[in-house]
Amino acid sequence: MLDKAVIEKLEKIVGAENVLTKKADLVAYSYDATADVQKALPDVVVLPSSTAEIQQIMKLANETDTPVYTRGSGTNLSGGCIPLKQGIVLCTQKMNKILEIDPDNLTATVQAGVIVADLNSAVAAHGLIYPPDPGTVATATMGGTVAECAGGLRGLKYGVTKHYVMGMEVVLPTGDVVRFGGKTVKNVTAYDFASLFVGSEGTLGIVTEITAKLIPAPKYKKSMLALYKNLADAGKSVSGIIKAHVIPATLEIMDAMTMETVENYAKVGLPSGYAALLLIEVDGMAKDAVEAEAEAVVKVIKENNGELRVAENDAEREKLWAARRAALPALAQLGNTVVIEDATVPRSRIADMLVELDGIRTKYNVTLGTFGHAGDGNLHPTIMYNCDNKEEAERVHKAVDEIFAAALKFGGTLSGEHGIGIAKMPYLKDELGESGLEMMRTIQKSFDPKNLLNPGKLVPAKEV
Amino acid sequence: MLDKAVIEKLEKIVGAENVLTKKADLVAYSYDATADVQKALPDVVVLPSSTAEIQQIMKLANETDTPVYTRGSGTNLSGGCIPLKQGIVLCTQKMNKILEIDPDNLTATVQAGVIVADLNSAVAAHGLIYPPDPGTVATATMGGTVAECAGGLRGLKYGVTKHYVMGMEVVLPTGDVVRFGGKTVKNVTAYDFASLFVGSEGTLGIVTEITAKLIPAPKYKKSMLALYKNLADAGKSVSGIIKAHVIPATLEIMDAMTMETVENYAKVGLPSGYAALLLIEVDGMAKDAVEAEAEAVVKVIKENNGELRVAENDAEREKLWAARRAALPALAQLGNTVVIEDATVPRSRIADMLVELDGIRTKYNVTLGTFGHAGDGNLHPTIMYNCDNKEEAERVHKAVDEIFAAALKFGGTLSGEHGIGIAKMPYLKDELGESGLEMMRTIQKSFDPKNLLNPGKLVPAKEV
Repeated sequence: MLDKAVIEKLEKIVGAENVLTKKADLVAYSYDATADVQKALPDVVVLPSSTAEIQQIMKLANETDTPVYTRGSGTNLSGGCIPLKQGIVLCTQKMNKILEIDPDNLTATVQAGVIVADLNSAVAAHGLIYPPDPGTVATATMGGTVAECAGGLRGLKYGVTKHYVMGMEVVLPTGDVVRFGGKTVKNVTAYDFASLFVGSEGTLGIVTEITAKLIPAPKYKKSMLALYKNLADAGKSVSGIIKAHVIPATLEIMDAMTMETVENYAKVGLPSGYAALLLIEVDGMAKDAVEAEAEAVVKVIKENNGELRVAENDAEREKLWAARRAALPALAQLGNTVVIEDATVPRSRIADMLVELDGIRTKYNVTLGTFGHAGDGNLHPTIMYNCDNKEEAERVHKAVDEIFAAALKFGGTLSGEHGIGIAKMPYLKDELGESGLEMMRTIQKSFDPKNLLNPGKLVPAKEV
Repeated sequence: MLDKAVIEKLEKIVGAENVLTKKADLVAYSYDATADVQKALPDVVVLPSSTAEIQQIMKLANETDTPVYTRGSGTNLSGGCIPLKQGIVLCTQKMNKILEIDPDNLTATVQAGVIVADLNSAVAAHGLIYPPDPGTVATATMGGTVAECAGGLRGLKYGVTKHYVMGMEVVLPTGDVVRFGGKTVKNVTAYDFASLFVGSEGTLGIVTEITAKLIPAPKYKKSMLALYKNLADAGKSVSGIIKAHVIPATLEIMDAMTMETVENYAKVGLPSGYAALLLIEVDGMAKDAVEAEAEAVVKVIKENNGELRVAENDAEREKLWAARRAALPALAQLGNTVVIEDATVPRSRIADMLVELDGIRTKYNVTLGTFGHAGDGNLHPTIMYNCDNKEEAERVHKAVDEIFAAALKFGGTLSGEHGIGIAKMPYLKDELGESGLEMMRTIQKSFDPKNLLNPGKLVPAKEV
């Protein structure tokens, strides 16, 4: 339990109204969007409004050896926000100012608590976009997406968060404020600290300000749906599209289980009797170029026995994407607990991975639907179950173990975009080996020797 | 001086023919392409052929506290290869195998000593390119460009080396071999070690293998030359093109001094009486889209009083680019020492920076020509002088100091693409502050506590 004197000091720093200690408030910050991981009550929640306040909070935490759990909107899917060792939850939601939009340099500078969608609304007036688009853009903060290196639907063509962070301001565990990177496309001064902080899950410092790269918004889009009687053809289409040198903005997949569940839930007109669908969107600045890419995609789909539906107008396009957006909420109806994984494979192994997932579903008799970003190999095998049923939970855990093993077997990775947090720590050694874990510990310790920042996450403690 | 027993052990590891100790050989490895920095003879040069050999060399170095200077082709421009503290120069030139080209996943996996141009020749058969293109592609190694995070002419549209490194194998100072990243576009497992190693200038580990991202080669290109009577118009054109939401593949600038020198040297038909020229190339997969972008560029050039020349065929295109390529060799004729800087500013400050450089030239009466990558703000102010003339050398050094100060004043950075090495270490604190330097020391020390890897570079020692 945190000393009362510390709470009072926090109240002096951010104002009493920005320090929460009531049980009901603490409960709201005891979990995030991750299912099936432990919850924990913090001692206190603080809502600072400036870098200077965060600096003082961090200094106080450092003096009193108090853990600090930085949190944006808590939408993350690996347990990254949970205050396992109590202490302070530092919520950035009041750090919500867009500090600058610079159309000459194609950059925006924002405080960490700015909502991703709010940034996109603001830059739309300049005909620009900030491309990273996790499913949670409407609520997730820039700071949170930077901490997790969020991905999303456009990763294949446009990359992920790390490709759009040009500079940042960070409060270090000492309370020192540092800035690195900036508005220049090229910058090789010092180690690439900005990249190191992206995806560091709040373990190295508190990101307070971000300079993000923007790009001109594509003017033309074309969406297509392809239906397949077997998984191999869908997989071959994914590879075939890339081989035809078309890089779609999005290239999504849904398996039969997900299609059926989506149709039952949302009645969007998805047919039954298919093994998988691909949802493909090409985009660009010139109409002819987009049309040419769409034609190339259609050719590949037909060569691989896909049945095609093309969106001829915005309403039809919207309908296709409504189906994709319904995938997670639809599946979520099927159990009181929804484990959504993001095991990722090289895109050439998508078909193999789907077959493997089919096998795992049968072997453990679990309710498993798969959808996700086929173009970049980032699938979301999603298991729905009743967590109160111990026997079922055990089967689910074994299935999850096998999903990770399969991803690694195919040359993939444990996590494409959700992060390690608590949920994937037990598997880290399988991917990185003991030397890799030791590198992680070394980095973490060098920044945060007292282990005050998000302790218990991302970096597995040394086995003794 | 290295113990004879160590040399003998090195001979056992890589074979006597791959261990160089003759004076003439050592001299060849005592410098790199950087002017105006000190030279130093190594004790020995080793040429390993495998990761296993490098692992043994590193273990031996670790046991005997011997510095290891990893070197590719030595084309770098900040003194990164110079063995300041003697010891071992570990040259990767025999690690020159392209291990795999994977068109399905758009990746290539190469050993560190593969020449960048050789990789591009190999992937061209698949209609693919590896975009980073420093001026030295014909000789520079992949390992060297990764160590420096090399940039080049296509940075604006295609990014730099760090955007194309997906995974790597590294020998750590302990001799342990680690792999991180891989063939997946998305990967958030662990800290982003691959990004940390890109641009780490050989101070954290020895990069032995690289998995690089490839992209489909653009099918159409259009080159344009614009001549300006004053610098401000050239600067406004750079901003204007981006504001028109055209991102050219290359957007290069040359000042009057460089134009005149190039014309005297190469007779490519550059007119006199202009303050600057821009050389612009747009590219893409569809002809109409490229034509539309070219039209938009032409409009901006005309609005800003530029005189236009468009390359109507390959021969004319080649002539324009010959002028650009001649810039450095032409300028280099003007002195026995050529200091080429890469101070970089946000692209909106290009015109301001050019005016500032004009002032510095006059103030210190130095022979200074500027060319470079205007589109990404990465200019190359280049000073030619006689290093035997002490008084002139002093003026040059003062001019260089002011160039860096100007770049920082405009929100830029010391180095866009050449790295810090020895040459820019004295200026690092001006950009990063003491906290930033301390972060660098912390990282360096955590990977390499004995300071065996490229000691004396990139990371300034603590002032005592």
